[in-house]
Amino acid sequence: MNGSAAPAYRRLSVEQRRTQLLAAAVDLFGHHRPEDVSVDDVAAAAGVSRPLVYRYFPGGKQQLYEAAMHNAADELRKCFVEPSQGAPTQRLAHALDRYLAFVDEHDAAYSALLRGGSVAETSRTGAIVDGVRRSAAEQVLLHLGAPDPGPRLAMMVRSWIASVEAVSLTWLDEGKQPPLPELRGWLVDHLTGLLVITATTDPETAGIAAAALALETPDSPAGELARRLAPIVEAVAHLLPDDGGRGMLGG
Amino acid sequence: MNGSAAPAYRRLSVEQRRTQLLAAAVDLFGHHRPEDVSVDDVAAAAGVSRPLVYRYFPGGKQQLYEAAMHNAADELRKCFVEPSQGAPTQRLAHALDRYLAFVDEHDAAYSALLRGGSVAETSRTGAIVDGVRRSAAEQVLLHLGAPDPGPRLAMMVRSWIASVEAVSLTWLDEGKQPPLPELRGWLVDHLTGLLVITATTDPETAGIAAAALALETPDSPAGELARRLAPIVEAVAHLLPDDGGRGMLGG
Repeated sequence: MNGSAAPAYRRLSVEQRRTQLLAAAVDLFGHHRPEDVSVDDVAAAAGVSRPLVYRYFPGGKQQLYEAAMHNAADELRKCFVEPSQGAPTQRLAHALDRYLAFVDEHDAAYSALLRGGSVAETSRTGAIVDGVRRSAAEQVLLHLGAPDPGPRLAMMVRSWIASVEAVSLTWLDEGKQPPLPELRGWLVDHLTGLLVITATTDPETAGIAAAALALETPDSPAGELARRLAPIVEAVAHLLPDDGGRGMLGG
Repeated sequence: MNGSAAPAYRRLSVEQRRTQLLAAAVDLFGHHRPEDVSVDDVAAAAGVSRPLVYRYFPGGKQQLYEAAMHNAADELRKCFVEPSQGAPTQRLAHALDRYLAFVDEHDAAYSALLRGGSVAETSRTGAIVDGVRRSAAEQVLLHLGAPDPGPRLAMMVRSWIASVEAVSLTWLDEGKQPPLPELRGWLVDHLTGLLVITATTDPETAGIAAAALALETPDSPAGELARRLAPIVEAVAHLLPDDGGRGMLGG
């Protein structure tokens, strides 16, 4: 707009240059395995020389990788934030849609990061991943109305988050099958199931589950799951007391 | 019994010496973090000199660690083997009791291994861990009568195994609470719940679940879970069709 010097040769301030290099690193490390990204790639993507990259990031590739990791962690944390209204399973579906879109977009980087074994993975990058897991758990517990959960409820949520990661990696291995909405639906149902099962032995979880289910509606994911589960009651009638399962309705 | 030379100075055959050194390494690496075990510790435990250890294991600590890992992997695989009779959830409970006893006994080593980040962890040790996961999945699928599972069923089992690992690590973090039988019961219920939930959208899993549930009895873990779940049907009545949930019994 101001018509002066050609943009490619424009002098940038120190802060602008740093931001530009970091953006190039975030883009490269966000879409490729760390071993497939070099300082030369970052320099080329930013249109600068290799020594200039080292002037801003003396730690070279490792420092750029960790900066990109922090950026990805912030992006992931934003995925989990969801307004506290509506059916809890509907809120979870929204957050998972954002999370799974992130996995889909950053497939190579996500897979490399969680599989580890790269030279770029250190205890520092491991701590960043653990921080993201903690944020995800905090958000789930917040929506369940249990910001300060007892050990069983905390264990349940941690277990579900480990499943989400394993399922995401399997999904990438399987050529991104099944389609994302199916995968998201299954992960939501998985947490609903865990909540109800844990409620049968843990009093705290029983209270949390009752409050959460009261907020669900017939067209929420939990409502749809309840209807799909209904025919299975027949298949377990032989496990129930003598009235053939009618006792289930009396409580 | 033969009354000759003092046992401590007895000459061992090459094979006997190798076995003795390996047993010492398995014991040390099976109960401590890899960074807390040295070649000197192995030599001391076997009552031999450090150079003798290197004569048998030229790769030193790393080679001893990998040999110990192979040994632990074999021991874990044995945990999962269970006769194909009785209620599937009862079989699973037996296998989990053995697995959790292993976690309990080898707490420091198990935790260090799955948390990674140690210099002793390599792509080779990672492959050993993946092999154990695959064995566990194969055994679960074998007992479900699905040795050649479709993608959804395979993903479900992999997801549960990831949960078992996360839960085992949480259990160690929490000072081994809750008691093992409670933890085992929850893990069995978790798989039962996943199976039933996945059955509501995947036809293959629906067939597998129906066949598995037919083998369950009122006093099996699945029978106990069904009875504990019964009162919760009331809490979801507002999600079901107008007859207040009675349709659940009609199928």
